[in-house]
Amino acid sequence: MLVLGIDPGTATTGYGVVRGERGGLARLIECGVVRTRARDPLPSRLREIFEGVQELIARHRPDALAVESIFYAKNVRTTITLGHARGVILLAGELAGLHVHEFPPAEIKKAVVGTGAASKEQVQFMLTRLLRLKAVPSPSDAADGVAAALTYCMAPHLPTAANAVSPAPRPRPLVREALP
Amino acid sequence: MLVLGIDPGTATTGYGVVRGERGGLARLIECGVVRTRARDPLPSRLREIFEGVQELIARHRPDALAVESIFYAKNVRTTITLGHARGVILLAGELAGLHVHEFPPAEIKKAVVGTGAASKEQVQFMLTRLLRLKAVPSPSDAADGVAAALTYCMAPHLPTAANAVSPAPRPRPLVREALP
Repeated sequence: MLVLGIDPGTATTGYGVVRGERGGLARLIECGVVRTRARDPLPSRLREIFEGVQELIARHRPDALAVESIFYAKNVRTTITLGHARGVILLAGELAGLHVHEFPPAEIKKAVVGTGAASKEQVQFMLTRLLRLKAVPSPSDAADGVAAALTYCMAPHLPTAANAVSPAPRPRPLVREALP
Repeated sequence: MLVLGIDPGTATTGYGVVRGERGGLARLIECGVVRTRARDPLPSRLREIFEGVQELIARHRPDALAVESIFYAKNVRTTITLGHARGVILLAGELAGLHVHEFPPAEIKKAVVGTGAASKEQVQFMLTRLLRLKAVPSPSDAADGVAAALTYCMAPHLPTAANAVSPAPRPRPLVREALP
């Protein structure tokens, strides 16, 4: 099962592609960020985020999209703008026929560290352990995307490639990739 | 100049198509709503809104998209969900190469009635006057979409089909990858 995890942001959207394997193991395939320029108008930034996610879906052909759900920031305006970015990310997954699942930040921390009150450093440390990495995924937005993807892989009640009933026909056949 | 005006909503998105004519006149071409079901998951509702707006754009080929900007509701969760809907609406306009412009509710009221503190009833009354209609556009979400479109037509400083300069070529998203 291949999962694309996303940590949405208007300026920096982090992502991680994680392959869930038998026996609860998981492997990091790729991670990174989609950046947009603050001086560009919002519609054009939303387009860049949307097309960036579409490009990732086209390249990796994941089975599922795991998105960190909204953080209710003190600054309502920032939170609302973030809602715009999440909207186009969820849309990209839906249009590609993926299983789209949202995880609150506390649920991601609980899945990765064991407690919803874990610090960012604890999450990053456990990511390197669970994925057997030599270093913390960087930048931190990318690590947050990886954590969302890993949370999906570790949630046994969620649909997997084995038990999934697709909500919509997949536009293209699943292509397995040669791994490094 | 043809303008598609939208009043975004997760459940009901109102729209109006207005043609701005010489001498400050305007004509209503069509109005209505795109409805989604509350029991459907958010990604699928976003898809319905996105495809509904795309269909309107394909049918009318407007020059511009005028969207009512967010109302900072008391209920933060509702406001954030509304942000998701606005995100996919702005994206639909951007992908179609339209001039996308956002208007705060007070600016719409000021353009249509003359004061930003106008009531909903005053806006609806002036809409029927300005567009020479026999009845108020219905339902009220549709009237709000019409008001957004009319505001764009009445704003002389905005780009029109005559004086428009196409937006700069869009750069590709900056995707930085950090492989494990």
